[in-house]
Amino acid sequence: MNRITSLFGIEYPVIAGGMAWCSGWRLAAAVSNAGGLGLIGAGSMTPELLEEHIEKCQSATNKPFGVNVPLMKPGVEEMMHIIAEKGVKVVFTSAGSPKKWTGWLKERGITVVHVVSSSKFAKKCEEAGVDAVVAEGFEAGGHNGREETTTMCLIPAVRKATSLPLMAAGGIGNGPSILAAYALGAEGVQIGTRFALTVESSASEAFKNFCLNLEEGDTMLILKKLSPTRMAKNPYREQLDKAEAEGATAEQLLEIIGAGRNRMGIFEGDLVNGEVEIGQNASQFKGKGIQTVAEVMNEMLAEYEEAKRQLMQMSS
Amino acid sequence: MNRITSLFGIEYPVIAGGMAWCSGWRLAAAVSNAGGLGLIGAGSMTPELLEEHIEKCQSATNKPFGVNVPLMKPGVEEMMHIIAEKGVKVVFTSAGSPKKWTGWLKERGITVVHVVSSSKFAKKCEEAGVDAVVAEGFEAGGHNGREETTTMCLIPAVRKATSLPLMAAGGIGNGPSILAAYALGAEGVQIGTRFALTVESSASEAFKNFCLNLEEGDTMLILKKLSPTRMAKNPYREQLDKAEAEGATAEQLLEIIGAGRNRMGIFEGDLVNGEVEIGQNASQFKGKGIQTVAEVMNEMLAEYEEAKRQLMQMSS
Repeated sequence: MNRITSLFGIEYPVIAGGMAWCSGWRLAAAVSNAGGLGLIGAGSMTPELLEEHIEKCQSATNKPFGVNVPLMKPGVEEMMHIIAEKGVKVVFTSAGSPKKWTGWLKERGITVVHVVSSSKFAKKCEEAGVDAVVAEGFEAGGHNGREETTTMCLIPAVRKATSLPLMAAGGIGNGPSILAAYALGAEGVQIGTRFALTVESSASEAFKNFCLNLEEGDTMLILKKLSPTRMAKNPYREQLDKAEAEGATAEQLLEIIGAGRNRMGIFEGDLVNGEVEIGQNASQFKGKGIQTVAEVMNEMLAEYEEAKRQLMQMSS
Repeated sequence: MNRITSLFGIEYPVIAGGMAWCSGWRLAAAVSNAGGLGLIGAGSMTPELLEEHIEKCQSATNKPFGVNVPLMKPGVEEMMHIIAEKGVKVVFTSAGSPKKWTGWLKERGITVVHVVSSSKFAKKCEEAGVDAVVAEGFEAGGHNGREETTTMCLIPAVRKATSLPLMAAGGIGNGPSILAAYALGAEGVQIGTRFALTVESSASEAFKNFCLNLEEGDTMLILKKLSPTRMAKNPYREQLDKAEAEGATAEQLLEIIGAGRNRMGIFEGDLVNGEVEIGQNASQFKGKGIQTVAEVMNEMLAEYEEAKRQLMQMSS
């Protein structure tokens, strides 16, 4: 029991990130049923689809779960009303100001967590009255902070900046990294990549197998002239790499990107033309194959206990 | 006691990185006298100057110390002979193949450590017969790996790739990050930035004060078309940032860089035209002022014990 498990009413302080095209009701329910907190990722959903996923998640688990809402997205207002009407108890907000929705959600008895990539924004979250923060480092897949602050540097800085309950994200997906996150001052972890590649993730099997065969250095944070995004190397990214190396402007990059690239890469499994958003630690899971959420949770918890045992022995 | 302390015959498994223009005999001797392992940084020295620093270090401490030798550097052969003749017991090699000098040094009874930024190179180190490896993450100041693998992701990968004694580097400079490094599987830490900013560092006071006032996001890894290098934001770096954003070629970048930029920035304290090589965690030390090595060691060890105590309480 700590501030994170009691805030959400869960067994383990392990949250599954709400990922576009991965975090549907199946993944969210599976993580909550395994003792963590599952999140539905609204970022890739219409309000109607979100409503359907919330209903299916509620019938698939009686444990707490939440919804992640990127605040820049169209349809946010409608989604927030659906979330409140459907009785969802937890909302993670990201990509926007925590001031905008925190009060409205808390008036309705909803626990609010905001995702930040700097201690400056963590302070703003405290002012906005959020219940907890996720500090997400440079390692994370998809959209990412401009400061490029890694989890190792970010967590102690955020811990110093705020007394709010703190979850660490970015590069976490095995027992040692969970223990390291706690050592840095976090009280819980948000895990994306590892859960994105499970059986219950709604990503395509082609995407999962591709990501489970990546090597160190195969993901890079690019598109810094637009919104920094971490994606795996494939023909699409190589096209962007070349354009950036040649000094392409934001406008020229947007022309190459067009629309629907992450749906293409993650959901449709087009590994040539699609955007393969995944975290830097994907290469650590090479050869594991597509595991169930329960297998992943059991493996991580066993590794965590072993890492803790070794840490107790070695260090003094 | 662990494999690192016994390998070097030191009290704490804390190594001070051998940094160009920072790691002279004063810093090396101070760290060794404080119970860690000090390294003289040969990267910014002529063979004659290295000989002088070794002699002065030997008269300033009777504790073990080492020399860091970047293998790409001219004069390496002469330096290695000086190191052997002077009876230095430890050599850290970097920026080159561990195969080249490891055998020669070990024949002379010298302990050899190689610095890597990927698990692939850690395996090569094991084949080359080194005694231990330093795995250095993306957070580190100065020259850095192409894979951009952070310490959080790198240490578990290297731990899995080799059974060699393992030190973690990159983003480590306070108690929680030392504990996190051990949680990830490291048995020791190499700390650069924190020691580069101490009284005993041979860097200019202007450089130290500038780096002790950086904010999160003020250092960036740039020059990826040449050799990726982390440096702090200043007019010189902004000139490089602009050129890179406009697609400057390696040749065009080399023209801007010219020669002696890191001597200018670090040793001479020219914060306008010089290269300010420093790690991402520098912003964590803002406001601490220029501390002595002994103060830094005592502070880190106290923080480490406190972080460990809290970890024992919170996690189970």
